[in-house]
Amino acid sequence: MGGNTREAGRSTADRLLSLLGAFTSKRPLLTLSELAEASRLPIATAHRLARELTDWGALERHADGRFQIGLKLWYVGALAPGHRDLRSVAMPFMEDLYEATHENVQLAVRDGKLALYLDKISGNQSVATVTQVAGHLPLHATGVGKIILAFSGPELFAAVAADGLRRCTPHTITLPGVLADTLAQVRESRIAFSLEEMTVGASSVAAPIFGADGKLLASLALVVRSSTNVRALAAAVHTAALGISRQLSGPVSAGWKRNLDR
Amino acid sequence: MGGNTREAGRSTADRLLSLLGAFTSKRPLLTLSELAEASRLPIATAHRLARELTDWGALERHADGRFQIGLKLWYVGALAPGHRDLRSVAMPFMEDLYEATHENVQLAVRDGKLALYLDKISGNQSVATVTQVAGHLPLHATGVGKIILAFSGPELFAAVAADGLRRCTPHTITLPGVLADTLAQVRESRIAFSLEEMTVGASSVAAPIFGADGKLLASLALVVRSSTNVRALAAAVHTAALGISRQLSGPVSAGWKRNLDR
Repeated sequence: MGGNTREAGRSTADRLLSLLGAFTSKRPLLTLSELAEASRLPIATAHRLARELTDWGALERHADGRFQIGLKLWYVGALAPGHRDLRSVAMPFMEDLYEATHENVQLAVRDGKLALYLDKISGNQSVATVTQVAGHLPLHATGVGKIILAFSGPELFAAVAADGLRRCTPHTITLPGVLADTLAQVRESRIAFSLEEMTVGASSVAAPIFGADGKLLASLALVVRSSTNVRALAAAVHTAALGISRQLSGPVSAGWKRNLDR
Repeated sequence: MGGNTREAGRSTADRLLSLLGAFTSKRPLLTLSELAEASRLPIATAHRLARELTDWGALERHADGRFQIGLKLWYVGALAPGHRDLRSVAMPFMEDLYEATHENVQLAVRDGKLALYLDKISGNQSVATVTQVAGHLPLHATGVGKIILAFSGPELFAAVAADGLRRCTPHTITLPGVLADTLAQVRESRIAFSLEEMTVGASSVAAPIFGADGKLLASLALVVRSSTNVRALAAAVHTAALGISRQLSGPVSAGWKRNLDR
């Protein structure tokens, strides 16, 4: 696999996975030629492999003939423990947090140098956000991302800083030194804020979720209108995150895992 | 692909997809030999393909060395429109329904002859259920399943009846004639109940979600303790399902789709 882009040097697995990887949240529907181009395959090869993927259910044809990811791949993917285990434990706490605040509740994990959103509760009253479940956002501009940066060791910070801190809004922290100071405070308080740093009009407050080994597993956040006093919500997020961490480490989790194997 | 199980007759795509298909909600972690057995591949082939899948992120190694579905496959899978579109539209309505009732709220679609659960809201007060997101349950024993059977045409009913109506509890309807009568009432009222027919101690009430073309897209349900008056909750479920149907058919949906393409 790796960087070999020549047709001859690529395994069938590599080609097949390239086809699946061609779909993104911005491009969930692709024609055969878009699919071939994105996966750098000849049309005939893309056609044959797309048909095999469709037969299995990994891809489906949309009404307009374009390809989309199929339901079968969704439920195989939903077996990924990063989503499955964490979500089952976190949901009741996220629900409590939503009910107490009526704001967007979001659960995210690290995926490389980005925050990946695993789950989200939002009501008809919550502020509209840019977050999508299974979508990615930058670490330095989001509350959940700052939690991930603060608790993931210096290598990640160095890598993110080396890429440059992209200005998402006029409020985004773009200076690595300023970000480093902020992260030191985050490590101290175990709370991170994003004050219109990702989206103008929206702010967030996030807290860490730790596993039994004390390592960061995920980050929980509330996203609110920037007119809301987000600092007043820090204790609520912190409480819910502690509840999830406790449940993930404790005997309840073992019982719940047995339940899963049933 | 299809039913050919001989090593020689199988394409790489078929082998690769068999590996992914070996994982189920009951067996989310597999050793290499379990993987080889479930996908009917020689160990060496399973090993090579599992490594390619792991390199790409479709599989991951658990701490104990077993394989599990990887985060990358989860987020590619999450692009499946069956999950993505419906969930985004349904979530605020599901949230309202949860808030009004504090009971489990579930969203399911048809997957072959089973109900596939796409999403679920449950709080600390809700009754424990057997439902898992991305899990399957039988059609004849669940509220969402009866909705699917009632609005999917006679072929599905015939196929399900031909398989035999498995007795899940002493209350499960196991006679096709009785089920047919029940489904006629469901078509009339647009409401289906499961009164301890799937799990002793839990009952459910479900309503249909239709697309712009009038075809059934999904089913929405509340699952409650059997001591709760589930009939009194029918109007609430019905209201939320109508709201989702309206939003999926209306101009708001178009706006939301543009938003997705951003």
